[in-house]
Amino acid sequence: SRGKSPVNQYRNLELVEEDPRYYVNCTGIINGDEETVILAKLQTLSIVYKKRPVLSEKDYIDFSKHCSNFTKVQRYITFPLSKEEEEFPIAYSVVIHHRIDMFEKLLRTIYAPQNVYCIHVDKKSPEIFLNAARSIASCFDNVFIASQLENVTYASWSRVQADVNCMKDLLQRNLTWKYLINLCGMDFPLKTNLEMVEKLKALKGANSLETEKTSPHKEKRWKHSYKVVNGKIKDTDINKEAPPIESPMFSGGAYFVASRNFVEYLFKSPKILRFIEWEKDTYSPDEHMWATLQRMPDVPGSVPVNNKFDISDMNSLARLVKWSYLEGDISKGAPYPPCTGVHIRSVCVFGAGDLKWMLQQHHLFANKFDTAVDGIALQCLEEHLRHKAMYNLLNYT
Amino acid sequence: SRGKSPVNQYRNLELVEEDPRYYVNCTGIINGDEETVILAKLQTLSIVYKKRPVLSEKDYIDFSKHCSNFTKVQRYITFPLSKEEEEFPIAYSVVIHHRIDMFEKLLRTIYAPQNVYCIHVDKKSPEIFLNAARSIASCFDNVFIASQLENVTYASWSRVQADVNCMKDLLQRNLTWKYLINLCGMDFPLKTNLEMVEKLKALKGANSLETEKTSPHKEKRWKHSYKVVNGKIKDTDINKEAPPIESPMFSGGAYFVASRNFVEYLFKSPKILRFIEWEKDTYSPDEHMWATLQRMPDVPGSVPVNNKFDISDMNSLARLVKWSYLEGDISKGAPYPPCTGVHIRSVCVFGAGDLKWMLQQHHLFANKFDTAVDGIALQCLEEHLRHKAMYNLLNYT
Repeated sequence: SRGKSPVNQYRNLELVEEDPRYYVNCTGIINGDEETVILAKLQTLSIVYKKRPVLSEKDYIDFSKHCSNFTKVQRYITFPLSKEEEEFPIAYSVVIHHRIDMFEKLLRTIYAPQNVYCIHVDKKSPEIFLNAARSIASCFDNVFIASQLENVTYASWSRVQADVNCMKDLLQRNLTWKYLINLCGMDFPLKTNLEMVEKLKALKGANSLETEKTSPHKEKRWKHSYKVVNGKIKDTDINKEAPPIESPMFSGGAYFVASRNFVEYLFKSPKILRFIEWEKDTYSPDEHMWATLQRMPDVPGSVPVNNKFDISDMNSLARLVKWSYLEGDISKGAPYPPCTGVHIRSVCVFGAGDLKWMLQQHHLFANKFDTAVDGIALQCLEEHLRHKAMYNLLNYT
Repeated sequence: SRGKSPVNQYRNLELVEEDPRYYVNCTGIINGDEETVILAKLQTLSIVYKKRPVLSEKDYIDFSKHCSNFTKVQRYITFPLSKEEEEFPIAYSVVIHHRIDMFEKLLRTIYAPQNVYCIHVDKKSPEIFLNAARSIASCFDNVFIASQLENVTYASWSRVQADVNCMKDLLQRNLTWKYLINLCGMDFPLKTNLEMVEKLKALKGANSLETEKTSPHKEKRWKHSYKVVNGKIKDTDINKEAPPIESPMFSGGAYFVASRNFVEYLFKSPKILRFIEWEKDTYSPDEHMWATLQRMPDVPGSVPVNNKFDISDMNSLARLVKWSYLEGDISKGAPYPPCTGVHIRSVCVFGAGDLKWMLQQHHLFANKFDTAVDGIALQCLEEHLRHKAMYNLLNYT
């Protein structure tokens, strides 16, 4: 590539939509231009757009059989974009169960050769889905399927176990990663890899996740014993023993940004292992276990118990989410403006109209996205991030 | 200085105490070594140490008459230590009323030629104190006395007016500074200038300051009208009109880290000017005005009203302070460990034993310090910061 200028060399890594039927003015979307956003909404509602082709599991299996073709056509980044990124690898734990198309879109956006990716596929998923994930992973020596797969049930321990399985694999497989980020299939980044590295470095070993005083109505989640019956979690109404820890229980989210030291400590400390065991028959342990570990003294990257150190979801870097019952007018006290997409079980599936605001937030990832709801939001976000990464590369070479 | 190696060139800028009577093992102090800390405590209590010479106002006037000698002996940094710092000037508003020795120690620790420093001297201070401050300032073209001086009364508007006067001067005098930090004479930095620049850049235009929901008992501070009578603030028991703003009143501290855009906006917005006017007859407006501005939509660098965006003093970068009634065992819920110095009106005057913990916190500045209480804490902190700055310089040239 000596003959080509840097601009031309990296032009084929840009992600501009080439099909004129689906062309969108992403610059206008990112800038929040009202007319452009309205046009985009109309487009997502049009038959042509709704019926656009989506690759199936079989398509991905065939496609990724020829890895060099696959990575080229899908425009994967196959070299570290900067020394800074190369020297600061990030590990990912990605928990998925369906929608291979969303997974692959996510993977190609977060992929960097110096990072490492553990993919946990739900044991309940159709075999063809697992095969498609395996096939995609086989094209990369730093992407693998978790060695132990769980049957993931909503609000049960299995969700945490999936992350724990990936943690074990990641610690063993790769000794260089500095931070771990956990994702699900409907997540998408709001930052380029370089921007994430800069924010992670600035943490100086601290973890970043939601951790707040437990509200009274949520205490039942760990005061009662729960069990999975016929694939659904049930309250047995039996009281559990008190948590085997000196610090209080805290409340938070399923997603974290955690230092390697934190992850290593989980498997070394008898007290933590005892606590993790105690968490296994609670409701939604993903939403109190990480938040509680983050307040335990001796846990690397943690903060003190005192409420001055509480971190809300909006103050953490981990995950940007809009809950329908909180949305509204920011100047009147709502934490965020209304969703321009739709809601699935109260969670906003972002629309193109949300993008400008989202890109102003500090979070590394946002949830949820879905090409079936608003493909333009994703298209423009993807294009924007890739362009930023290329622009940065061109300006520093 | 071509003849000297970089190590020798910068050795004279290190700040190691040369007088053997006052020598302290600062490395041990910074590492929190128990024996070293105990020895240091004994030293601060010894007669020899307590009677060590302190420069008077007259001493400083004489000393700073010969600027090149003054800046050399006091080891001021007279060149930008990095391009990154040079391109990111910081403005300071320093409000002082006594202890010229503490002020000059602070100035020499935060001084960098690309920054700009406005010194507000209390109108009530003795003339010789103002003259000493003027004399020191005259040695630097980027250090000046505020053009308008106030008679500063405890808990009254005059404290805020002092900062506002400096803000006006700073905006006019220097068009390049990016962020403003306000200080008082008992503050001291916990970070080198470069570390501050990195943290300020990472804010990406946001301000960082304490801003929390007002607790009921503090509402009276702005619900009643107060006035200064015979140099003391008095509650007139007259109810004030509601604040002329749509967003709620918030509660915080006197100290902020604010973007230039924030400062400029204060003087441009009629609504803000109206609100500032309304604040003038409240109690301790410094502890609610900045916190409230920080939650107003349209204010540059602000965050939304919703309590998810509350920032405690421990989560803000602005100021690290220990309040006696909160100190205790961190693992039992105290926000910070006990003060190893003394308390003045409930605020900890830091001792050498506090240093290790303080340097682990993310704050840019801490309050309070006093050489008369524990000169070793300051000596070691000064030495540590200067050494870090020199080390960084040597490793990147």
